[in-house]
Amino acid sequence: MKLILDAMSGDLGSAPAVEAAVRAVQELGLEVTLVGREAEIREKLTGRNAGITVVNASEVVDMHDAPTTVIRQKKDSSMVVALNLLAAGEGDALVSCGNTGALLTGATLLVKRIKGVRRACLAAMMPTGAGHSLLLDCGANAECTTEYLTQFAYMGYHYYRTEKGVDRPTVGLLNNGAEESKGTDLQKETYAVLKADADAGKINFIGNVEGRDIAQGAANVLVVDGFTGNLVLKTYEGVGLYLVSQMKAMFKKGPFTMLAALLVKSGLMDLKKRMDYKEVGGAPLLGISKPVIKAHGGSDEIALFGAIRQAVRYTEGGVVEAIAASLRAEV
Amino acid sequence: MKLILDAMSGDLGSAPAVEAAVRAVQELGLEVTLVGREAEIREKLTGRNAGITVVNASEVVDMHDAPTTVIRQKKDSSMVVALNLLAAGEGDALVSCGNTGALLTGATLLVKRIKGVRRACLAAMMPTGAGHSLLLDCGANAECTTEYLTQFAYMGYHYYRTEKGVDRPTVGLLNNGAEESKGTDLQKETYAVLKADADAGKINFIGNVEGRDIAQGAANVLVVDGFTGNLVLKTYEGVGLYLVSQMKAMFKKGPFTMLAALLVKSGLMDLKKRMDYKEVGGAPLLGISKPVIKAHGGSDEIALFGAIRQAVRYTEGGVVEAIAASLRAEV
Repeated sequence: MKLILDAMSGDLGSAPAVEAAVRAVQELGLEVTLVGREAEIREKLTGRNAGITVVNASEVVDMHDAPTTVIRQKKDSSMVVALNLLAAGEGDALVSCGNTGALLTGATLLVKRIKGVRRACLAAMMPTGAGHSLLLDCGANAECTTEYLTQFAYMGYHYYRTEKGVDRPTVGLLNNGAEESKGTDLQKETYAVLKADADAGKINFIGNVEGRDIAQGAANVLVVDGFTGNLVLKTYEGVGLYLVSQMKAMFKKGPFTMLAALLVKSGLMDLKKRMDYKEVGGAPLLGISKPVIKAHGGSDEIALFGAIRQAVRYTEGGVVEAIAASLRAEV
Repeated sequence: MKLILDAMSGDLGSAPAVEAAVRAVQELGLEVTLVGREAEIREKLTGRNAGITVVNASEVVDMHDAPTTVIRQKKDSSMVVALNLLAAGEGDALVSCGNTGALLTGATLLVKRIKGVRRACLAAMMPTGAGHSLLLDCGANAECTTEYLTQFAYMGYHYYRTEKGVDRPTVGLLNNGAEESKGTDLQKETYAVLKADADAGKINFIGNVEGRDIAQGAANVLVVDGFTGNLVLKTYEGVGLYLVSQMKAMFKKGPFTMLAALLVKSGLMDLKKRMDYKEVGGAPLLGISKPVIKAHGGSDEIALFGAIRQAVRYTEGGVVEAIAASLRAEV
């Protein structure tokens, strides 16, 4: 398959993208198109350009660019050029470390949504006690309708299935209580639709999930509006980082605590690894007609290579086709 | 002051309430009215009834009672009798471990809201890296208006001020981004109102707070709708409990890790204490015309005594009066 890599939008410049592209060709047998400042990229490639195409783009989208203006005002940015290549069929999937809002807006306008999908959304894999849960929407749509949430449920179901190789992932609705009467009208209506679909064998909906149960891995897929999803995801991440920093401080207090750290070193590494978002990879944009992965802004070569492998699974697993098929049956 | 204690609604029965009441008389010089099954309570008091009045109530509200029916269907429950005593001026404040929704509905209908307050809400003290943050609403009002959220901001401001002895607590609006353009119309409008109030010197509003910054203690008071607030609070609590359980498992692996646990024992206790909700006490109902504290359902004597001390500060600190004064200036 052919992967398009936005080489310029990450915090660390083009170096991680170049290295990850070389690995992707060598280890995964991909063809890679690197998009960005051509001279700079070619210099870094230095004779390792087998399987790699470089497409020039003179501008870079940054975190301060307003998502809605990027397409018009930064037409020659690596992100917009990459999206246009994807839309034109010059590649099968795209990975970018850039501005999330700009990537989502750009993908929606240039690559377009899957037919029948009302809104594209951003999904995040959260590390939990049971492995991982996919949370969606985690920020793209602050306000949602029952139809959006229902579609997110199917989109998450098919993505999780492929990404994790789970036959019938469990889908839960994030809510402020377990009973079906909980939440606002949005949750009550979505609950009713998903319950009926589950009864008809269409989706493995297990009901409402409370915040307290997320960390234990209460469901494979967690559905919620983008406003709440963003707050839940970032709260989750923030508490994890805070507790890890507190543990570090605890172990650094003196010689005895430093000895203790040595004694539990492997366990500590394990725990840190389990809470580390870099290990989890990028966030898929779901509902777009071609696979797009938003990698972390600060991705190094390893994180970016992980995101590329994710894009491969997203593409070769036929997630877009599965979503389209399930929603055509719905709409 | 005179404290009313619902002695029956907790998971552990009347024993913790009786013991906490005896301590409250002895150590805090309170008069306490215990409400519940009189014979049972008197037996447990056995000669320690100085300063304590017992009022009989034959029923108990449980977690399965629908909040809206409790007042009509369980008129002789300890919770409803206690609320009626508070409404009648037979006490200055009330502490109950019972069903949150029933307590909130009962307090609103029987004790009434402060004049001008649109909705009462439930606030929770969350342990953070900087001490504590008060989150409100954390579950009472799934759907909110700008006016509700603005009032919550003032209610939280005055409560935090008294509870923590902070002169001008910082108030933040939980949002899916830091910029003032973030969120739905509800957040944008609330931001504008609170910003104008801050410019007029009425409240120490510091702007939007993201989920990631909660654990570091980004603001003393965090304002959000009850749906999102419930999910954020429980997610926060869930991740903390999960990580503590993972750490325990890590230290129990073998003789070396158990030695390590001994070496960092005090640090571990510290960390656990900081994440422990029992240490934090009960959740105040705010916007009600008299102080009501909802203690944890599983409260033991120590937790309940902590909630009583909280009720004392809520009462003697004049929080209700301060909220009333600030909202009259607003309305």
